[in-house]
Amino acid sequence: MKLDYELLTDLYQLTMAQGYWECGQRDVAACFHMYFRDYPFKGGFAVACGMAQLAEIVETFAFSDDDLAYLSSLDAPGGGPLFKPAFLEHLRTFRLSVDVDAVPEGTVVFPHEPIVRVTGPIADCQLIETALLNCVNFQTLIATKAARVCLAAQSPVAEFGLRRAQGAAGGVWASRAAVVGGCASTSNVLAGKLFGLPVSGTHAHSWVMSFPDELAAFRAYARAFPNNCVLLVDTYDVEQGIRNAIEVGLEMRARGERLAGIRIDSGDLAWLAKTARRMLDEAGLADCGIVLSNDLDEHTIQSIRDEGAKVDSWGVGTKLACAYDQPTLGGVYKLSATRGPADAAWTDRLKISESAAKLTTPGVLDVRRYFYGDGERLAGDMVFDVNAGARCETIVDPADDLRQKNLSGLRFETLLKPLARKGETVLAPALRDALAARERTQAGLSTLDESQKRMLNPHTYPVGLEYGLFERRRDLVVRLRGIA
Amino acid sequence: MKLDYELLTDLYQLTMAQGYWECGQRDVAACFHMYFRDYPFKGGFAVACGMAQLAEIVETFAFSDDDLAYLSSLDAPGGGPLFKPAFLEHLRTFRLSVDVDAVPEGTVVFPHEPIVRVTGPIADCQLIETALLNCVNFQTLIATKAARVCLAAQSPVAEFGLRRAQGAAGGVWASRAAVVGGCASTSNVLAGKLFGLPVSGTHAHSWVMSFPDELAAFRAYARAFPNNCVLLVDTYDVEQGIRNAIEVGLEMRARGERLAGIRIDSGDLAWLAKTARRMLDEAGLADCGIVLSNDLDEHTIQSIRDEGAKVDSWGVGTKLACAYDQPTLGGVYKLSATRGPADAAWTDRLKISESAAKLTTPGVLDVRRYFYGDGERLAGDMVFDVNAGARCETIVDPADDLRQKNLSGLRFETLLKPLARKGETVLAPALRDALAARERTQAGLSTLDESQKRMLNPHTYPVGLEYGLFERRRDLVVRLRGIA
Repeated sequence: MKLDYELLTDLYQLTMAQGYWECGQRDVAACFHMYFRDYPFKGGFAVACGMAQLAEIVETFAFSDDDLAYLSSLDAPGGGPLFKPAFLEHLRTFRLSVDVDAVPEGTVVFPHEPIVRVTGPIADCQLIETALLNCVNFQTLIATKAARVCLAAQSPVAEFGLRRAQGAAGGVWASRAAVVGGCASTSNVLAGKLFGLPVSGTHAHSWVMSFPDELAAFRAYARAFPNNCVLLVDTYDVEQGIRNAIEVGLEMRARGERLAGIRIDSGDLAWLAKTARRMLDEAGLADCGIVLSNDLDEHTIQSIRDEGAKVDSWGVGTKLACAYDQPTLGGVYKLSATRGPADAAWTDRLKISESAAKLTTPGVLDVRRYFYGDGERLAGDMVFDVNAGARCETIVDPADDLRQKNLSGLRFETLLKPLARKGETVLAPALRDALAARERTQAGLSTLDESQKRMLNPHTYPVGLEYGLFERRRDLVVRLRGIA
Repeated sequence: MKLDYELLTDLYQLTMAQGYWECGQRDVAACFHMYFRDYPFKGGFAVACGMAQLAEIVETFAFSDDDLAYLSSLDAPGGGPLFKPAFLEHLRTFRLSVDVDAVPEGTVVFPHEPIVRVTGPIADCQLIETALLNCVNFQTLIATKAARVCLAAQSPVAEFGLRRAQGAAGGVWASRAAVVGGCASTSNVLAGKLFGLPVSGTHAHSWVMSFPDELAAFRAYARAFPNNCVLLVDTYDVEQGIRNAIEVGLEMRARGERLAGIRIDSGDLAWLAKTARRMLDEAGLADCGIVLSNDLDEHTIQSIRDEGAKVDSWGVGTKLACAYDQPTLGGVYKLSATRGPADAAWTDRLKISESAAKLTTPGVLDVRRYFYGDGERLAGDMVFDVNAGARCETIVDPADDLRQKNLSGLRFETLLKPLARKGETVLAPALRDALAARERTQAGLSTLDESQKRMLNPHTYPVGLEYGLFERRRDLVVRLRGIA
């Protein structure tokens, strides 16, 4: 199936676009930011991902005759066509003219800071909102989950969750995000082909079941794959399966080949891994690795390692590919400033909510990341208005103004990088490459303190508004409450 | 992006296919069944979905030159090419020759009964396994969630979870599955176009924020959409927003138009809905409906209704589109029988596990659904071997052999219907249509007892193995434990 990103949107984005077009707002420029409010998985960081697909969305965004025929067929609930013919004609030649800035994939990011900024005509900004949120929310979630799993595993992790992933493209981009987050490989062949990811796999229980007995199945597999032989030992009885694998491993050795590993996919994995290691070592197959799989996540992996099992690699499926314990990031995309055609400057915009944590931040924003020393350890992130600059280098927690931190004198870098200008993508190839993003993830995680990478109750990283921006936002709340 | 289903698979399916091809197993016929083991969402039923995409998978399955070039580029971990040139040549002209039987979309289904059956050459059966599981698992999950949400809501539910869905295609098929499960409409325009689903939407907070004040924003929207005017009232302050909406609603009435509704997207929804209803009624706008949204699911909706709020329709996003509280179904696809080229009959195959609940069932299976009376109420489902038939009409719970039920004398129908024969789909257009599937869902749910539709601790529906099949399975376990 082919996915047309121009229609991969909520209907209201198109009706609002018609509304803006009709009521003279079409030339109003807008600035939107995408950010999330809560640490995913109760962890201490997130890994940004989704920017390669976002570039693809921007590049392919155009309405076909087919799209327009479909839109013209829609009726308003109260009768009459939903879209006006003149608006559909406008869409026929419509091209995005947004500027998009985003953190590179693999950047370690935190709540309340912009990950993506979109500026341009307000309708353009909204027409890509849904697809942008869909890809950045989901892929950031999966890259983060993968990073957590890989931190726990310490040895290579293969992602193989496609069969439990949420839909086909969900699976394909999930596999890519898993590699960005740190996975060594994926079982997903299409993702391997599309994104140049390492692919890997062993065999299924059905292979064993289709032969008269397990030993015959193992022998046939070893003959077929002498350079890639990992035997799944739990179809009938794990210990007997290990004995059969050892028999085949010794036969392979006699032929000058090597049994690369055995995989255990059920039962008490920690206990079985230790048993298997002992049996393999006693048989002289110390070079045969142990692969574990079956409903693993960062917590079960940590527990298995804590029990002293020596595991050479891990297969992680369901709980990674759909981020089982928290299947959405909840990132939002909020209007923060507008500028009319005659305006010299941007006007702040704010959505007020009942809680300080859900209040939006006005302005055209970017993030300064401060480092201790020569860049080896993160100190704090400052959200600032690019037009106002940083008046002082004190940051204020947007959800709790008693939490402040002075970052003056520290080295910093600015996080948002150009992804598109006037609707044309300018993202360098190196910023689309999943394996380069994986290196960025590793480098970024190494700048976090161990306390921020803890699985349980990690240390909260300081992210705040630049002091002047904090004050501007406070004043705007007071003013808007008055005019609502 | 275009999704090629032939590579939408785990690598091991392709390596195993090469293994079967090489070691003379290629002419072995196999029978696989897809089923799930646990009720999703701790509920009392599931709604089958995903068969329309499964038909698309079967229809488009062919390896392109591009695919083969990619596969030939892969190396085995131990060195040398992973795939042999002769096998890749075999794939070049490969066409599926499987028979697929499946329950129609919208069928109410239960744990431990086959939803899809695939028979054919063993490699063919495995090459579609991953894509089949991906689509049937996910869509059945979402259709089931939607059915639960709609049972709780009682008034129309619009699905609008695309921005939080897991990937683009995840979002598109999720929207379709949500409609199959009972949703009145979706906000997802691409899903609307692809599958002929009703689409709907209101406007966003950004519409309001882009105008000088809320009243100006509401007036502009009412002018732009006199036949489709639902105003979002919680950008700044909900009660003031309702007052502004009332002012615009009265202006519309004076022009002979109608304010269709207001939408509340934050705060205490039950309290605000009751307040809004009172304010609208007092203003003479009794015909203005109330739409609620914001992190809703079946439980919050039920609680809001229990408090007496009168809600005309609901927008349900995140928690529906990714099935937040249980983001995978966990359905499996298990080999149950093989037949060699010289065999007259099928040989039973079984995967043994440590628990009775995870044991597979051998044979070539189908399901008889028994009804009380003339079909108005379900009595129980029998899993039986189509070649052995039903020796007696007593069913045995596969996970607990003390639970048995005699269904003799009751009317029954058989659930699996042909979807493909020798790789050619035979699925009637009526069985691909999402709106027809939604009717099947409604009809199916009406045959369930209220106790089976309860949200909390529902009654368990009797599904069991035909008595002779139960005995065959038990004997096979004993035998396989011996030869493993």
